[in-house]
Amino acid sequence: MIHAAVTSDVPKTILVTGAAGMLGRKLLERLARDGVLGTAQIGHVTLVDIVEPGRPAGASFGVETLAADLADPAAARDLVSTRPDVIFHLAAVVSGEAESDLEKGYRVNVDGSRLLLDAVRANGLDYRPRVVFSSSIAVFGPPFPDAIDDDHSTTPQTSYGTQKAITELLLSDYSRRGFLDGVAIRLPTICVRPGKANLAASGFFSSIIREPLNGEDAVLPAPETVRHWFASPRAAVGFLVHAATLGSSALDGCRYLTMPGVSETVGGQIAALRRIAGDEVVRRIRREPDETLARMVASWPRRFDPQRALALGFRAETDFEQIIRVYIEDELGGSIGAAGS
Amino acid sequence: MIHAAVTSDVPKTILVTGAAGMLGRKLLERLARDGVLGTAQIGHVTLVDIVEPGRPAGASFGVETLAADLADPAAARDLVSTRPDVIFHLAAVVSGEAESDLEKGYRVNVDGSRLLLDAVRANGLDYRPRVVFSSSIAVFGPPFPDAIDDDHSTTPQTSYGTQKAITELLLSDYSRRGFLDGVAIRLPTICVRPGKANLAASGFFSSIIREPLNGEDAVLPAPETVRHWFASPRAAVGFLVHAATLGSSALDGCRYLTMPGVSETVGGQIAALRRIAGDEVVRRIRREPDETLARMVASWPRRFDPQRALALGFRAETDFEQIIRVYIEDELGGSIGAAGS
Repeated sequence: MIHAAVTSDVPKTILVTGAAGMLGRKLLERLARDGVLGTAQIGHVTLVDIVEPGRPAGASFGVETLAADLADPAAARDLVSTRPDVIFHLAAVVSGEAESDLEKGYRVNVDGSRLLLDAVRANGLDYRPRVVFSSSIAVFGPPFPDAIDDDHSTTPQTSYGTQKAITELLLSDYSRRGFLDGVAIRLPTICVRPGKANLAASGFFSSIIREPLNGEDAVLPAPETVRHWFASPRAAVGFLVHAATLGSSALDGCRYLTMPGVSETVGGQIAALRRIAGDEVVRRIRREPDETLARMVASWPRRFDPQRALALGFRAETDFEQIIRVYIEDELGGSIGAAGS
Repeated sequence: MIHAAVTSDVPKTILVTGAAGMLGRKLLERLARDGVLGTAQIGHVTLVDIVEPGRPAGASFGVETLAADLADPAAARDLVSTRPDVIFHLAAVVSGEAESDLEKGYRVNVDGSRLLLDAVRANGLDYRPRVVFSSSIAVFGPPFPDAIDDDHSTTPQTSYGTQKAITELLLSDYSRRGFLDGVAIRLPTICVRPGKANLAASGFFSSIIREPLNGEDAVLPAPETVRHWFASPRAAVGFLVHAATLGSSALDGCRYLTMPGVSETVGGQIAALRRIAGDEVVRRIRREPDETLARMVASWPRRFDPQRALALGFRAETDFEQIIRVYIEDELGGSIGAAGS
């Protein structure tokens, strides 16, 4: 007991890979605001990405920012040589690019992850950091039951999902052997993503909410009957922080956790937007069916039953209105302003 | 139709990795006896292993034997440059060694497999061989339901199982992309293994049958209540051949198949041995409980419900007596001779 208390009073050092991405930036905003990770003060944070990440505003802890390629063995070794207590491994080639550039996807998402875990291992058994890995529900492929449970097999239908599943396996084996203390959290589709639309096939789930709220038109390429699994960026950051502070014994035997989320149809998303922002805003959604995309989206998971993560205290929003309100609070300063009807 | 007939009349070329192992040798005996693979004549077979494999007796096809390390990129490239129609990828560091030598296990079982698949890919999209990969029920870990179904998650509890699961994922992704036409078959514990006892923790399942039938004493380190999943070497070779000749469309969407087998307890194994060979032979089994081993074995899968493989025509023995009779037929010339009571 005394030992645990002393440990949590020692300021933590943290390494974040992929820190220039949306999730990395939002994680750093949260850490800067909290100043603590769980019950431990944050002493120092190293941020790394393929381009130098920005610095969070108002951090009370030391921050170092670095540009490095994790698929370079020397880079991984250097990053881990300072023995950070917690590593958030968020760096990844996104799904569209992993599909269009096979070699880059495997190089970054598989080899980069393995080099990082091997660099941890090379420090010896007296160094056993918590490694939080941002995995994805893309590890699952059809056919799906109505609700996918925690023991469902991983049959990814994309190279991105394959690469995430491979890294989960490696993280789990290295944890079992005591080289590190890993947890892979399978993130839902993050919605509403701030900023410009990206090229991900899942982008429309965010843009049909974001653009209308920002007074712009949005294109809906999929049918309103499509159902999918969502959590807000704020909830995703909450998952990362909770995963970093969970007791190790809670993870023994299973290092992969499907995160909770909201199962909603596109029609339900739009109805939630109407209740919050009115008909005028919803009219900014233009239907332009895209059969290729509709076929792709039809093969995505619709609903999970993430009992293990819920039992460990992970929490997401409970309906899609809450997800929209998080966007309004975190990105629009709390009101929909000119966009309101 | 005409196209299919013409294709199957062209003699097949075959590459077998791990050809010096027990399964590789038995596969080659079968191919030499049959002279065909499915409906196609066998034209040429290349056998490779880390030590030069033996040549099968009585083969009507050309045989080349090679010693090579698959974890050497040039070796994989050379082996595949002749574009074999079918690749049996059996090469692996076994489970005990993969656990005791982490780097060797990952180098051979993961990197070696990836180099082989990448060598196939490097031949371009006009080359798409059937790749049969010998995976294992070691991809599964506890807790188990009473019967493990085809959609059960892979949570391996050994580095060997992890490495097999990683290769399955890669094989599946490369198949989806059209680089190859892969099928991973998850083999039961092969029993009764011929030859000397090896150091595998599962070795006693074979030795408690084999040694008594050979007139020697055997040690039983686990309780008779332990239940596990078995198939004979002959059935395993049958799985490999069937996997090599399955239509590709049968595999679309799922490239991993848990093989059928016999679920039996150690007590049931011994009862079957008694029915076949009598009390005298069974008395050669000496109980020497080993608690460490008993704990390990208790975490192994007990029974599967391999609907997918059964629907595709894979068949194993249906009870443990048949498994013993296969050993007597294939290894003891059909009678238990001096060992009989």
